[in-house]
Amino acid sequence: MSQRRAKAELEESRSDARVVGEGPLAIIAGGGTLPCALADAATARGRGVHILGIRGEADEAIARFPHTWLKWGEVGKLFATLEDRDCRDLVIIGAVKRPDLANVRFDLGAIKNLPFLLSLGMGGDDHVLSSVVRFLESKGYRVHGAGDVAPELLAGEGKLGANAPSNEDQADIEAAFHVVAALGRLDVGQAAVVVKGHVLAVEAAEGTDAMLARCAELRRRGSGRRSPTGVLAKAPKPGQEERVDLPTIGPGTVEKAAQAGLAGIAVAAGRVLIAERTATIATADKHGLFLFGRKPAEVPDA
Amino acid sequence: MSQRRAKAELEESRSDARVVGEGPLAIIAGGGTLPCALADAATARGRGVHILGIRGEADEAIARFPHTWLKWGEVGKLFATLEDRDCRDLVIIGAVKRPDLANVRFDLGAIKNLPFLLSLGMGGDDHVLSSVVRFLESKGYRVHGAGDVAPELLAGEGKLGANAPSNEDQADIEAAFHVVAALGRLDVGQAAVVVKGHVLAVEAAEGTDAMLARCAELRRRGSGRRSPTGVLAKAPKPGQEERVDLPTIGPGTVEKAAQAGLAGIAVAAGRVLIAERTATIATADKHGLFLFGRKPAEVPDA
Repeated sequence: MSQRRAKAELEESRSDARVVGEGPLAIIAGGGTLPCALADAATARGRGVHILGIRGEADEAIARFPHTWLKWGEVGKLFATLEDRDCRDLVIIGAVKRPDLANVRFDLGAIKNLPFLLSLGMGGDDHVLSSVVRFLESKGYRVHGAGDVAPELLAGEGKLGANAPSNEDQADIEAAFHVVAALGRLDVGQAAVVVKGHVLAVEAAEGTDAMLARCAELRRRGSGRRSPTGVLAKAPKPGQEERVDLPTIGPGTVEKAAQAGLAGIAVAAGRVLIAERTATIATADKHGLFLFGRKPAEVPDA
Repeated sequence: MSQRRAKAELEESRSDARVVGEGPLAIIAGGGTLPCALADAATARGRGVHILGIRGEADEAIARFPHTWLKWGEVGKLFATLEDRDCRDLVIIGAVKRPDLANVRFDLGAIKNLPFLLSLGMGGDDHVLSSVVRFLESKGYRVHGAGDVAPELLAGEGKLGANAPSNEDQADIEAAFHVVAALGRLDVGQAAVVVKGHVLAVEAAEGTDAMLARCAELRRRGSGRRSPTGVLAKAPKPGQEERVDLPTIGPGTVEKAAQAGLAGIAVAAGRVLIAERTATIATADKHGLFLFGRKPAEVPDA
């Protein structure tokens, strides 16, 4: 009984999180198109939204939704807005640059929470984000993943565009996921490039785009024109706070993978966000690249 | 008895390898100053040398020793020279770029060995080099490590220059060696940069200099001027053919580490070559960087 009851409650709370809830869904927005995509998805489900755009990070396009602009350090304004708009459910989404703390002006709400803010220190990004989630939860907010609200933003399973990986590509996919899993356990990064079994590049702090630019440069210096081979693999780190920090690909990732002469991109299905899905898939199709969602069960040691 | 005998024979063959041998020591030379440093070290020990300089890779300075220039693909000329000069002992040393096979002209000796050459394929560099060693051994040559001939070319233990790592640096050293060991097991690379426990960069095919340039760029974008922190760690991969492919540092590595704002460089003692030792240490001292040889016993999982 109690198990069924717990399960029913869980399902209720989940469907609650997805669509219903009280008050609008608050979207704390970094850069890129995902915050608006999420707001559209929530709105289509009948859920009101209020976007809290981080100044200098979020796109001006958030202005087509109810919104408030926040600067880094305006923690008091964040809580005042959430209170004022009656938001209890939050999603944090979009890319952010690590702020230069020397130039951040802290408001009164930030000063009050200074011991927490100082505790963020200089760990991995993952540590910072999971601390932020715990901080918001300690204030009584519910933090949801973008995929809980709009599963269509996540990569599905199998072939996502027109092209499928060959058997050779599949071998590179497995090798690349093996590297990404090993790196993830060391809290290093979320991506690697493998070409014919050879690890060409590994991502740490520089990000996927910089890693792909390096691959393009390495292959230009190599032996001339070749048919596209090799794969970019992306997956979250084990233990990563997947509600707020999922790896993301978009049309730019595909363009850079094409420039690096890769055959395609493989992502952990259900655990990687796709920005501008239509454009991302169209770009892959145009360049003849595969986009592949690797099933969770196949992720090694996950 | 037989154990003691075997040990005596091993020691005899080792001292033989180091200095005595019959005929001059053949040095197959790639780029940089190490081939000449090795030739000097062998000469100082009374061993004659003959340098086989790879055209486009080896420095013109090899001309002060008995030498022959070889192009990529001149495998027949290599064996003819070794025969002519009565060389049975070989060292392969110095940096090489992966040749563009489309532009290599193979001589008759290469054609005869084409099945082997084709088998080199596109594995990791390590695979290629250990195959080359097995190939030369199959022809009856003895392949030695540079450190067998001239141990002074290897990094020693502990503090190598004027500066020693702090306790915080030691923690970064341990973290960085942990990452390098994990990467090495995946045949990825030999180096990583860790700053206050955070993995800033990981080396794959781009090489250490490119990785350090990336770190400098990342830190410029970060929060302004900081006191130097973090460490570059270098160590061979487990199972790597250490006779022909040891990681190397030199004055340029130290300059780039300084530009990246690191506190120092740690290498696996006895398993990393130092090019231009005097200049390397002087450069580290000038910039206030530590150079540290980490004891083999401390290398995790080695």
